[in-house]
Amino acid sequence: MKLTFGFRATVCEIIEGKGSMAHVGNLVGKARNVLVITDSGVPPQYAESVLAQFYNASLLIIPQGEESKNFNTLELIIDTLRKREIDRYGALIAVGGGMTCDITGFAASCYNRGIDYYNVPTTLLAQVDASIGGKTALNFGGIKNLVGAFHHPKGVVIDTDTLKTLDKREFYNGLAEVIKMAATSDPALFSLLESDLPLNEILDDIVGAALQIKCDVVLEDPLEHGLRKVLNFGHTIGHAIEIASNGRLLHGESIAAGMTYFCSDEMRKRLERLLKRYYLPVKSPFSGEVLLPYIALDKKRTEGLITTVFVESPGIFDFRKMTPEEVVALI
Amino acid sequence: MKLTFGFRATVCEIIEGKGSMAHVGNLVGKARNVLVITDSGVPPQYAESVLAQFYNASLLIIPQGEESKNFNTLELIIDTLRKREIDRYGALIAVGGGMTCDITGFAASCYNRGIDYYNVPTTLLAQVDASIGGKTALNFGGIKNLVGAFHHPKGVVIDTDTLKTLDKREFYNGLAEVIKMAATSDPALFSLLESDLPLNEILDDIVGAALQIKCDVVLEDPLEHGLRKVLNFGHTIGHAIEIASNGRLLHGESIAAGMTYFCSDEMRKRLERLLKRYYLPVKSPFSGEVLLPYIALDKKRTEGLITTVFVESPGIFDFRKMTPEEVVALI
Repeated sequence: MKLTFGFRATVCEIIEGKGSMAHVGNLVGKARNVLVITDSGVPPQYAESVLAQFYNASLLIIPQGEESKNFNTLELIIDTLRKREIDRYGALIAVGGGMTCDITGFAASCYNRGIDYYNVPTTLLAQVDASIGGKTALNFGGIKNLVGAFHHPKGVVIDTDTLKTLDKREFYNGLAEVIKMAATSDPALFSLLESDLPLNEILDDIVGAALQIKCDVVLEDPLEHGLRKVLNFGHTIGHAIEIASNGRLLHGESIAAGMTYFCSDEMRKRLERLLKRYYLPVKSPFSGEVLLPYIALDKKRTEGLITTVFVESPGIFDFRKMTPEEVVALI
Repeated sequence: MKLTFGFRATVCEIIEGKGSMAHVGNLVGKARNVLVITDSGVPPQYAESVLAQFYNASLLIIPQGEESKNFNTLELIIDTLRKREIDRYGALIAVGGGMTCDITGFAASCYNRGIDYYNVPTTLLAQVDASIGGKTALNFGGIKNLVGAFHHPKGVVIDTDTLKTLDKREFYNGLAEVIKMAATSDPALFSLLESDLPLNEILDDIVGAALQIKCDVVLEDPLEHGLRKVLNFGHTIGHAIEIASNGRLLHGESIAAGMTYFCSDEMRKRLERLLKRYYLPVKSPFSGEVLLPYIALDKKRTEGLITTVFVESPGIFDFRKMTPEEVVALI
């Protein structure tokens, strides 16, 4: 006997623009029983302004930092949902960076076998990357995102006003992901980033364009079976650098350093120029020998081969299957 | 901007019959890296016979009993998968009862954001109920199945030979779920159960018929938005009895006791006769006052109302929305 189960489609509504945080209540439904989750590193006014839009909302503040993305925090969120008597019609709202969006999304995916959640990302990195696409997770046994689920947010509110309070280093960290997406998928955005226009003037254009790329790729390949792997440009070495740096380098910084090894000579020159302008590293600070064990752990490995993304010129890329040793030889 | 994500369909293959456990290796793929999970209450020969069909399989034995269905066991399974270097192409196989199938399925749903798993249920209850339908879970904060996911097994192998080693009380416990399904959905099965034919002669017919009901209902409504609620016949009060008994009554026994309150007079008489024949309780051993708080916790409550299933005669039922107080008044 064979059974085939078809699943419902999920709709995710995205609102982008300055001041858009004021629309969270209307998007979610002001009368719903919601739990807002933020972390101690996020300016408290953001979660408070979201909270104030609901008749029946509670707040949970989790400690800042990647170390919070674990089973203890998950249990804390589940326990808070239970104590607040939030049922399957309630919702979770994440206000913060990628860590907060990831763990909130995973809690939403498994509480009562799945409730709604909304992301209100307050870092550039989360706005253009983690908040969209439904990849929720926590870290376990030293492996990033080992445990998680595909669970799409019902809505994402991207308020670029929040970037005003963002630390400069965090801002450039997010810009590394924008540069990554422009390199593989949007020559016009890459040229815009190379132009001499001041960043704060073109910020909404940049975020909008990056968002569009992320949405196009995710819609094409929601479960990461093919095209979505393009988003992993720079990640094969970058991810290993991030682990080896043990918190000293941020995610975007690590990815920046990991991108230049997978470019044509011409592309490498343009990319390095752009990365340096935003104080981003262009080379691995670690030797290939140090990185090899982490590269070999790559979750995306199939029968010993890692699918890497090679960029010829902005918007022109191809996938190359390599052994961990071949990757290390590039460093 | 609105995005709509459509998901792939999942295919679940079901093999039923005496001796079918010998087919697990072929179904899963003998060369795959698999982790077999069983519990200490299951005769060890079953997991061993499954293990022997693979070139590269490991075994994890978890403690018997509902108390194992928690975050600690989940972390133990995830940690074992990590240590055995099982990647997203590996698989989990549950050999045991509902607890083992539920926690194994949940681990499979979230390890690497979802890997394949297979159920080899060895109790009648799990064979006709928990092993099919994709409802995976663990218990938390005293609430059964508070945390979980919809994640369908890729295959289910139902070997009725395993019922020979099953404790009599456990067997009747499973029969209560069969009686429940026959009552709402299969008059012919209900009559077969009422007949004087010896159980061991009609066992495969009974299991096959119950399986067919479960599959039909789950296929019609995979995410429990409507028809699948028919499987909750007897559960509104039965689930509360199970919690109040604190382990003294088994799941099927509790459901048996919870069914007779939601029947026509004629149906109640037939049902009580049948339940008594298999040493199953026909009445709640607890007062309505004791059960009220547990009934009020019902996960399926919408705006204060619980959807209950009322059976007029075998195969004829309707849904009735009731307050917890109205339910208690029946007891």
